Amino acid sequence: MFTIKSQSHDYSVETFSSLAKVFEGLADTRGQLYLVDREIERIYQKEIDLAVPEASRLVIEATEEHKSYERLSPIFLELLSKGLKRDGTLIVVGGGVAQDIGCFIATVLFRGVRWEFIPTTLLAQSDSCIGSKSSINIGDYKNQIGTFYPAHRVMVASDVLSSLPWDEIRSGLGEVIKLQLITGQAGFDELMDDLKNLNPNGGLEIIPKWVDRSIAVKKPYIESDEFDRGIRNILNYGHTFGHAYESATKYDIPHGIAVLLGMLTATYLSARLGLIAESHFLDLKLRLTPWFHPFEATLLKARREDIFKAIRHDKKNTGDFVNCILTSGPGRMEKIKVDFDRELVPAVEKFIDKECSARPS
Amino acid sequence: MFTIKSQSHDYSVETFSSLAKVFEGLADTRGQLYLVDREIERIYQKEIDLAVPEASRLVIEATEEHKSYERLSPIFLELLSKGLKRDGTLIVVGGGVAQDIGCFIATVLFRGVRWEFIPTTLLAQSDSCIGSKSSINIGDYKNQIGTFYPAHRVMVASDVLSSLPWDEIRSGLGEVIKLQLITGQAGFDELMDDLKNLNPNGGLEIIPKWVDRSIAVKKPYIESDEFDRGIRNILNYGHTFGHAYESATKYDIPHGIAVLLGMLTATYLSARLGLIAESHFLDLKLRLTPWFHPFEATLLKARREDIFKAIRHDKKNTGDFVNCILTSGPGRMEKIKVDFDRELVPAVEKFIDKECSARPS
Repeated sequence: MFTIKSQSHDYSVETFSSLAKVFEGLADTRGQLYLVDREIERIYQKEIDLAVPEASRLVIEATEEHKSYERLSPIFLELLSKGLKRDGTLIVVGGGVAQDIGCFIATVLFRGVRWEFIPTTLLAQSDSCIGSKSSINIGDYKNQIGTFYPAHRVMVASDVLSSLPWDEIRSGLGEVIKLQLITGQAGFDELMDDLKNLNPNGGLEIIPKWVDRSIAVKKPYIESDEFDRGIRNILNYGHTFGHAYESATKYDIPHGIAVLLGMLTATYLSARLGLIAESHFLDLKLRLTPWFHPFEATLLKARREDIFKAIRHDKKNTGDFVNCILTSGPGRMEKIKVDFDRELVPAVEKFIDKECSARPS
Repeated sequence: MFTIKSQSHDYSVETFSSLAKVFEGLADTRGQLYLVDREIERIYQKEIDLAVPEASRLVIEATEEHKSYERLSPIFLELLSKGLKRDGTLIVVGGGVAQDIGCFIATVLFRGVRWEFIPTTLLAQSDSCIGSKSSINIGDYKNQIGTFYPAHRVMVASDVLSSLPWDEIRSGLGEVIKLQLITGQAGFDELMDDLKNLNPNGGLEIIPKWVDRSIAVKKPYIESDEFDRGIRNILNYGHTFGHAYESATKYDIPHGIAVLLGMLTATYLSARLGLIAESHFLDLKLRLTPWFHPFEATLLKARREDIFKAIRHDKKNTGDFVNCILTSGPGRMEKIKVDFDRELVPAVEKFIDKECSARPS
């Protein structure tokens, strides 16, 4: 169990062996309403029916299209009409999108209502469940609306991992790997060793350890810089490129896998700028390939124009320079201003042309 | 000038002799967009045209109907399409409704963007401009959505008071009077003395002093209890009843005038519960009458059912008891649980029947 400090309120992250066990501890508390991802309700119908009366359950479509300011309005209204009160609790069950929706609603309903989160994807369990952030789309603008408001309690159920498709597992591993790369060589090596036991047919039992280790790495960053103004930027390693790869492929590349490709791009750019030896990039590519392949081919097909437009429009960037998290090796990440036209564009072009094609490089 | 401490950021309240002077200090800063109440743009067309390029101006309808979650969507989109950036500034010019809209948008756009506020009503200048709160309607639910996020800078222009209708002035005085009643007998007496010089034809020059004094009173409450969990509740004196009177009369009674009638109701109830002598209530009624008359007649015509339903649904209440700020005299306010059916309803019925009718009581 972890306790995370936050400016609004401290909160705990607790691990349970199963979703059924999580629900056991929650049953029969008055004043609580559940916001449940439809997909999760379908998979865990029995557990949810047992624990959550229909009257206090609101099932939502947790998709990128539904994560929009305009589409939240009926959810607010249904929560109010189902009788959620300012001293009540909203319990969110789902992955990152359900978290974004639930967190945003909980922040602004009654100027902030208690909410608890049961993350059901590896991405949400290992990364997004702590750190307070929500991101909501509006019109055609992605993630331009949001809040900082952590759950009051996070409950991780380890058994839900077994219901996830392989690419969802790999996507979650993207952030798990990122957090170890940020930490240093030893953690990264240990993780890579453990991952040798994981494949589409088994080995999930190694994951809960790395969920814990991920939270342990992220905790000090978000505690000391909750509002992402300084040191927490480091956690964006791989994200400037990753976000652009996601949006330029219309989200055909899962988030964490785009982050893997993004970290590789950042390392490639770091080598071109002389921060790190090229051999380091080649070694990293070799070790990460099993976790993103064959999505590099999806990236190869994306329109370059869309990629560069997305990087330019990233909300972190202004003017002719782009803030990138570059690296001089595991555990050594740094925010560096990169010249967009002269440094970034040619590096990304060459990375995709040379490193994402099927031809041996 | 005041500096107000807040959990998100400290901010200043500065006073200027005129709106033109405020704009002078703001002109030509890049990256700032203005959100201007249409009514204010009409009255101060010249000053605004001089200072604010049309391209960086967004004029809004600042009415209760437009203060709704659903109707904010086009405002967000226009701010984004006009190029507001995360390092930009939103400058809000208007009264309380413009403040609610601007504050809410600034809280959630880019997870919080800098905003500055030029309050143009007496209510906003003396009361709402500090304290961080925004309130937004959704569907048929009033003020159930909102945030805590103060402006980064408040600029009070004293000359705007002269453009306000008499009832707007009296409405603002409702909160000014409340703040002095909370403080104690001496301040209240001094205010009442000063107000003898004020009438629909003149005397506005006494007001800026009381705007300052109001902020001085409110400042320690909001600094020590920004999120309204304890001592700040005292500032709700008159509001449980006042809000109900506003909504039951479909906002025919201006906010601050409803607060005056609400404070009188709270004092009446306090007398019935033995907290204060009836003579105190009679004296208060005599002194407040010029500032609310003839709106007591509007209240007399309201449906009692609507009033009681509104009090029951006030977001501060749960169960059979209602939290009321009652009083044992100026400077002595206290939060007390009042039995809804046995104590509150008969007191309000009698107050309206006896004290709001034209017949001498």
